[in-house]
Amino acid sequence: MKHSQSIQEHIHMVASEITEELKRSLKAYDGAPEKLIEAMEYSLTAGGKRIRPYMVLAAAYAINADETTVAKAIAPACAVEYIHTYSLIHDDLPAMDNDDLRRGKPTNHKVFGEALAILAGDALLTGAFGLITSLVRDGQLDARIAVDIIDELSTYAGALGMVGGQVADMEGEQGITSIEQLQFIHQHKTSDLIVFSVKAGARIAGANEHQLQQLELYGRNIGMAFQIQDDVLDLIGDEQKLGKPVQSDIAEEKVTYPYLIGLEESKSLVVKLTEEAKAAVLAADLAFPNQLLELADYLVNRES
Amino acid sequence: MKHSQSIQEHIHMVASEITEELKRSLKAYDGAPEKLIEAMEYSLTAGGKRIRPYMVLAAAYAINADETTVAKAIAPACAVEYIHTYSLIHDDLPAMDNDDLRRGKPTNHKVFGEALAILAGDALLTGAFGLITSLVRDGQLDARIAVDIIDELSTYAGALGMVGGQVADMEGEQGITSIEQLQFIHQHKTSDLIVFSVKAGARIAGANEHQLQQLELYGRNIGMAFQIQDDVLDLIGDEQKLGKPVQSDIAEEKVTYPYLIGLEESKSLVVKLTEEAKAAVLAADLAFPNQLLELADYLVNRES
Repeated sequence: MKHSQSIQEHIHMVASEITEELKRSLKAYDGAPEKLIEAMEYSLTAGGKRIRPYMVLAAAYAINADETTVAKAIAPACAVEYIHTYSLIHDDLPAMDNDDLRRGKPTNHKVFGEALAILAGDALLTGAFGLITSLVRDGQLDARIAVDIIDELSTYAGALGMVGGQVADMEGEQGITSIEQLQFIHQHKTSDLIVFSVKAGARIAGANEHQLQQLELYGRNIGMAFQIQDDVLDLIGDEQKLGKPVQSDIAEEKVTYPYLIGLEESKSLVVKLTEEAKAAVLAADLAFPNQLLELADYLVNRES
Repeated sequence: MKHSQSIQEHIHMVASEITEELKRSLKAYDGAPEKLIEAMEYSLTAGGKRIRPYMVLAAAYAINADETTVAKAIAPACAVEYIHTYSLIHDDLPAMDNDDLRRGKPTNHKVFGEALAILAGDALLTGAFGLITSLVRDGQLDARIAVDIIDELSTYAGALGMVGGQVADMEGEQGITSIEQLQFIHQHKTSDLIVFSVKAGARIAGANEHQLQQLELYGRNIGMAFQIQDDVLDLIGDEQKLGKPVQSDIAEEKVTYPYLIGLEESKSLVVKLTEEAKAAVLAADLAFPNQLLELADYLVNRES
């Protein structure tokens, strides 16, 4: 981040770079059926703020701002976006949320059909792991660190993580009653992949156990704040800025934090979680904590 | 394999052991939504000959018959069955083959609903990679070998492998004209995961590059033979032994090897591929090649 650059500008710039890297990463699939690559690329490049890849890079930078180190973090940054993208493709399917539009564009199955959408999701999920191993193949990463990252990707994205959160969310649509259940959903559906992101970036840059623990705390808190802020914005946000209709949660009778603990309490909780996230970063003894600190503030103050 | 035991008895025994290991592996997901685990277990334990896990174990045994070595191969053996099982769950979905029954039992989505079936598939796919890393975590496997296995799993199961073959097969249903296209489908949809299986088992047991190359050739040939034999059995097999109606390919107007090159030519090709597979095993300089050789003969002579 250049000194004159705002965090928002930096996030925007990194998002463009990540999109280019994601496109480039698909060259590894030369020889695979063209329609499949097309479907994968369609959703990978359909926009988004690329917050998770940003976290991977910011965490690597926080440990070791050396350019070569941060460049290595691009592979796990793309991997987490592969995972996030596959989960959106599968979530949008008629059997799941049955969404026709995402970020104003037709969803994957609307363009490519359901079968190809399922398979494009499967291919992205499978490919995410190959992005990590390719770093070892190229002699850029120690195999043991790669194994630790892959191990956590499998955990945080799988039955105990994101997929588990998705199932709990689905079951919850038949009536969540407790804050614990909602917390379980948010933790796994959203926060787990964010925790993975900061830890993977930090591991690439050679973080020690203490730093990893603090960054896990950072990721956990920021992830929960992120999701509660989403609920808040759905209630009181600006449709223009959000790019989607507000109060959809009410229309869909979704149980949210504001619904369970009230709007003001939810807003306070977002602030509290953000402060705890920042405290963890400060306790982590990082060389360059600024991007992570500014990101926390940015996310709590965002309007979309 | 005990000396008095036939290969069929041995495959049967190993299949039971693998089923137990698969059940045990799900204990790692304690704390995940119960319905999700139930859906994963339902399909993981729904039967099947477990040919792929058998190949993993037989390849490890061929390199080093030491019990501890073969025991380590159980993790990749389960991993390949996770992948195979997820692919069956997703293939059976209404948007794909729309099958209500598999091996005489209702398909996953028929029991758990489509959404959970999609997610159970995703969780199995994600979990497969964690089975490999767990060996490193437990101090049983060198990280570099784990990375090589994971790298190949991502390739052989992904867009360039099994998923790519699945897409080509889907596109082919709109009319395959050439043997090359059919070969592409068989190679990726079936044979790739078999190649992965033998190489993963061999890697676990410390195979050298020459052995890996020969075993890749073995897997490739046996995989193609396996699939062509399936086509042949569909045409002339015994419904009772197969446990499914014959001549379904004709009913579904599927383009098969017998359709393209004739029945007798297809049978000869199965024999030729099997001989080539056995020749590769013999050229691999293996300590205990017998299980792999007998497996090749078993697969070509099978009636179901």
